[in-house]
Amino acid sequence: MHPAERILLGPGPSPVPQRVLRALGAPTLGHLDPQYLAIMDQVCDMLRQVFRTGNPLTFPVSGTGMAGMECIAVNLIEPGDEVIVCINGVFGMRMKDVMERCGATVHALEATWGDVFAPAQIAAALAAHPRTKLVGIVHAETSTGAHQPLEGLAEIVRAHEALLVVDAVTSLGGHDVRVDDWGIDAIYSGTQKCLSCPPGLAPVSFGPRALARLDARKSKVQSWYLDVSMLRKYYTGGGGGGRVYHHTAPINMTYALHEALTIVLEEGLEARHARHAAMHQRLRTGLEKLGLGYVPKRSLHSLNCIQVPSGADDAAVRRRLLEDYGIEIGAGLGPMAGKAWRIGLMGHGATVRNVDLVLAALREILGR
Amino acid sequence: MHPAERILLGPGPSPVPQRVLRALGAPTLGHLDPQYLAIMDQVCDMLRQVFRTGNPLTFPVSGTGMAGMECIAVNLIEPGDEVIVCINGVFGMRMKDVMERCGATVHALEATWGDVFAPAQIAAALAAHPRTKLVGIVHAETSTGAHQPLEGLAEIVRAHEALLVVDAVTSLGGHDVRVDDWGIDAIYSGTQKCLSCPPGLAPVSFGPRALARLDARKSKVQSWYLDVSMLRKYYTGGGGGGRVYHHTAPINMTYALHEALTIVLEEGLEARHARHAAMHQRLRTGLEKLGLGYVPKRSLHSLNCIQVPSGADDAAVRRRLLEDYGIEIGAGLGPMAGKAWRIGLMGHGATVRNVDLVLAALREILGR
Repeated sequence: MHPAERILLGPGPSPVPQRVLRALGAPTLGHLDPQYLAIMDQVCDMLRQVFRTGNPLTFPVSGTGMAGMECIAVNLIEPGDEVIVCINGVFGMRMKDVMERCGATVHALEATWGDVFAPAQIAAALAAHPRTKLVGIVHAETSTGAHQPLEGLAEIVRAHEALLVVDAVTSLGGHDVRVDDWGIDAIYSGTQKCLSCPPGLAPVSFGPRALARLDARKSKVQSWYLDVSMLRKYYTGGGGGGRVYHHTAPINMTYALHEALTIVLEEGLEARHARHAAMHQRLRTGLEKLGLGYVPKRSLHSLNCIQVPSGADDAAVRRRLLEDYGIEIGAGLGPMAGKAWRIGLMGHGATVRNVDLVLAALREILGR
Repeated sequence: MHPAERILLGPGPSPVPQRVLRALGAPTLGHLDPQYLAIMDQVCDMLRQVFRTGNPLTFPVSGTGMAGMECIAVNLIEPGDEVIVCINGVFGMRMKDVMERCGATVHALEATWGDVFAPAQIAAALAAHPRTKLVGIVHAETSTGAHQPLEGLAEIVRAHEALLVVDAVTSLGGHDVRVDDWGIDAIYSGTQKCLSCPPGLAPVSFGPRALARLDARKSKVQSWYLDVSMLRKYYTGGGGGGRVYHHTAPINMTYALHEALTIVLEEGLEARHARHAAMHQRLRTGLEKLGLGYVPKRSLHSLNCIQVPSGADDAAVRRRLLEDYGIEIGAGLGPMAGKAWRIGLMGHGATVRNVDLVLAALREILGR
């Protein structure tokens, strides 16, 4: 087993720094070892900094990004609850599916794929469904590259006493995510995007309004593995009774996340976000010179979703990128299969070297 | 962050070989990269060998052991189903809790902690509850060290057209587990016990009768993350439509499991089981010389649950083992807190060196 050294410029996983790979291989501690608990506490503290939140209940769920989405859904939804999910791509569709499996009645607020939602649309949906308990929205839609503004949504959602739930899988660590300033009640992300850690953990944060909802539940959370009333005792010692064993956390993945977050904070959030913005602009300029256009009107910096040009063979181009250059980019997802390429510039991968290389490779392969 | 080099002789995680730690740090591939899919296919094939099964649907769930338990419960249970759960320790209790959260009516068949179940008891429970659709039992009860025989149970369970579900978290790779010979319909384990891989994945296997149950479901599986009707498309390409993306699997953990399973099969299952048996016997003989007695009548080889002797300070002894010797052993769990120690001899940790060291350390600390 000798995995090739790919340049990961797809929708995730992103390139992992050697420092993080080395941290992965540190000696395994027990999940109740005082040393491990100290490392976990530091991870939670660094996650609070990256999420820009003071929420005590901020921790990495022991699963990949979709486990983070499911963790928030199973804890905050009870059967019969009405929720609004904003759908403008695959991950909004998934949020609807996950929440319906929790027994929610989901009112889908739909937009054209690639578009984003205006606050007035969400206000109108809430007015139409006044019993809504939760509004779910995707900050960074990985299937289309659309970048959803979140400022100002909390006021609208709170006026209806609903919770604001945000998918930040592809934005955290690459775009500004301000949980407290933006009034986000619950948020989830993944480690394998702009944090440049391997996949396997899903950072989440629950604010006080979300915790109050959890404490007021009439029914048991349908997932034992993701039940925050128990997880909070392990991760924070909160909820009464001190720190209590729940499940065996993925020890070595926690080391990797510790190192990845250390790197994020060494660089600084502002500098890191600015780097993502600059690399996006560099790529966009180059793509435009090649005549390649973007799918979304308001693109993420971390994920560039572009139209496959007419005459190009989607799969053949991606295969040549992989075989001749060792570069992975993403195919279109769902209805965009065959119509879009997704070029990720995430975390450790958002460099001049990678941008110029993928542009040179596309120029060569497309013959432009 | 510099984790100490502990000797992990608790209930898991177990010591991880350097080869596995190095595999963890191999370059991260994309989860749809042909190279990664080949590695995943090899992992599934090696898991089939270790489970001794031909079940095509054998794969590692992207979570720790409890996610494996939950994966089987959510897929095989529909609301209103009657099930029997055999409870003789913490993990039987958890299985009851997890299955109730799936909407099952659970008939608990209870035994004294440390005891195991006789086939006649299970036959009687099935006779009393003839509508039972599933019987859940723990092969290796990590909280008490009891080793449950499984031979002959399938005939009894099948006579009632029920499924046999087995928890093999602490036995797989240390004790013989014969999925096909023993007629087990669904089974789950963890990587961090006798396979000596870090925690983070949960090997599972579904047999044909379990798959038929899944295919006949009237309701959607309540967990999106653990829905086998979708997962099987990613892991096996089965269920129609070829290989389909589901979630981003924990890539580097898959490398580690690949290496850990390679080591298991290099040693050979018979030799590995014999080593676990011999190390258990060596420890037992030494513990008896120190006057320390076992909790279960029929002990696992992989986990030795012993009574804290009168006069000994449970926490102080464990603290000295950790601080003076760098040895982790486990405390008692649940009602056995303060009353039991759990000494794991799992996988890479089941060596003469470790057995003789923990015996010497206990002799010194207990002053015997």
